Amino acid sequence: MTSTLPPSFALGAAPASPLAPAPPRGPVRDVYFVSDGTGITAETLGHSVLVQFEGLHVQQHRLSFVDSLAKVQDAVLRINESISRRGLRPIVFSTLVDPAMNAHLHTANAMILDLFSSFVAPLELELGQRSTHLVGRSHNISDSENYQQRIEAINFALAHDDGQSASELARAAVILVGVSRSGKTPTSLYLAMQYGIKAANYPLIPEDFERGALPGTLAPFRHKLFGLSISPERLAEVRFERRPNSRYASLANCRYEVEQAERLMRLAGIRWLSTTTKSIEEIAVTVLQDFLEER
Amino acid sequence: MTSTLPPSFALGAAPASPLAPAPPRGPVRDVYFVSDGTGITAETLGHSVLVQFEGLHVQQHRLSFVDSLAKVQDAVLRINESISRRGLRPIVFSTLVDPAMNAHLHTANAMILDLFSSFVAPLELELGQRSTHLVGRSHNISDSENYQQRIEAINFALAHDDGQSASELARAAVILVGVSRSGKTPTSLYLAMQYGIKAANYPLIPEDFERGALPGTLAPFRHKLFGLSISPERLAEVRFERRPNSRYASLANCRYEVEQAERLMRLAGIRWLSTTTKSIEEIAVTVLQDFLEER
Repeated sequence: MTSTLPPSFALGAAPASPLAPAPPRGPVRDVYFVSDGTGITAETLGHSVLVQFEGLHVQQHRLSFVDSLAKVQDAVLRINESISRRGLRPIVFSTLVDPAMNAHLHTANAMILDLFSSFVAPLELELGQRSTHLVGRSHNISDSENYQQRIEAINFALAHDDGQSASELARAAVILVGVSRSGKTPTSLYLAMQYGIKAANYPLIPEDFERGALPGTLAPFRHKLFGLSISPERLAEVRFERRPNSRYASLANCRYEVEQAERLMRLAGIRWLSTTTKSIEEIAVTVLQDFLEER
Repeated sequence: MTSTLPPSFALGAAPASPLAPAPPRGPVRDVYFVSDGTGITAETLGHSVLVQFEGLHVQQHRLSFVDSLAKVQDAVLRINESISRRGLRPIVFSTLVDPAMNAHLHTANAMILDLFSSFVAPLELELGQRSTHLVGRSHNISDSENYQQRIEAINFALAHDDGQSASELARAAVILVGVSRSGKTPTSLYLAMQYGIKAANYPLIPEDFERGALPGTLAPFRHKLFGLSISPERLAEVRFERRPNSRYASLANCRYEVEQAERLMRLAGIRWLSTTTKSIEEIAVTVLQDFLEER
């Protein structure tokens, strides 16, 4: 997977799709994410750090499930090919936890940023406790209660997407409301997947605007409602992608819907945020922090 | 949000739901995730590190969008309350990038694990380049092409969930197949959300087993098919949650379906993995690494 970083890596843990690499525009440096598990932690931190370097061009390589010395040896061989190919020392973000594997990784001809040694060793001192050095712990399902909660929340979000079902709204932690394409569905799914939170979502549609009130189904749940709004201009862009040159996507219609939706939310006294310049992650964390954790 | 860590934190970036805290079972230490953005990077790394300490009980606090000196001051006040409450020095995982804000955070009475100073400073030397120290870069949407790709992939996964639509299977990067409840839907959504990959999923059902062939709709896309299987015992448990005491959930029926599904996949020559002990993240990364990136 190749990607260039200017002006910034968006999306934290989400790399440019390995299926659609962007052409590099200058000297390229290899970056390896080495992990005994999925590599998601290494990638997440790596991206957050690399995005701080404007104009940096990197080719990313995910080396996941490196959970034996033999696999570390393979990884080192691959990493060592980089410098002759690029003429630049590669950068390695590692979350290996096994001391012997880690020591072997450090023989690679690379700049190694070793996440666990950097933090686990000082934490052992602070906590007065040895760490287990057990591999592959981050994304396993041994804590099956939390895991089950996430899976249930995903099923809940799907069953209660776009007002499909009102049968179990009482079980929702939050019900997102807003006009079509304001970001409700991805936010509901992210809250479920990442935090195990049951989020339903319900569209605000022209019938609601004509009636001048939120959907009656939602009345018993007003304390759970959180609104997503969006600038009419951005909404028109997003809708145009989906249905070009439709009334649905026209700026006039988007202006009307957004204005009406905000009026209904104001009347009902529910809180909302604008998703215009926010990512799914930012919307989800805002809902979590400013709404769910405050109640 | 409170959580206990034995025997392990599952789920990497996914903390125990703040809405359903587990009761602590011993001395509790406060852990703060401080970020100028969502805090997802700090949480992801923090969890990966803390899971290495067996039996550790922590109460987690997410301090997101700490993007001004005033907010850092608030954060420091909150962190400083911990030691008198707990009698133990709190642990802070920080991804603050602004040097002045970071310096102020370091005045807190806490053990501070500062992700950016640990890695950005050495990278500046390696790359011969100053970092931008721009706050809130990780999860913003300035790289709107990647962001748009993720949103489209989520919409694609929803439209092509559970064989709902075959209209655009040609646009799928991968089509997951397997019996009901083998993990296809959450994996498709995770691939979309995290990696911007368009994943469809298609169930294998009794009609397919009787006919002894994969659904005809999938025939043109055999090279895109990847199977998810599961142990019959685990499948029966998962289905029991959904429909207790049904034929659907019976062990005999689960054995039959899994055996037949694996037979069909073998006949068609498609690869599969067992999801029995794997998390969504592990399944998704395996599909990515062993299938999508190899093609």
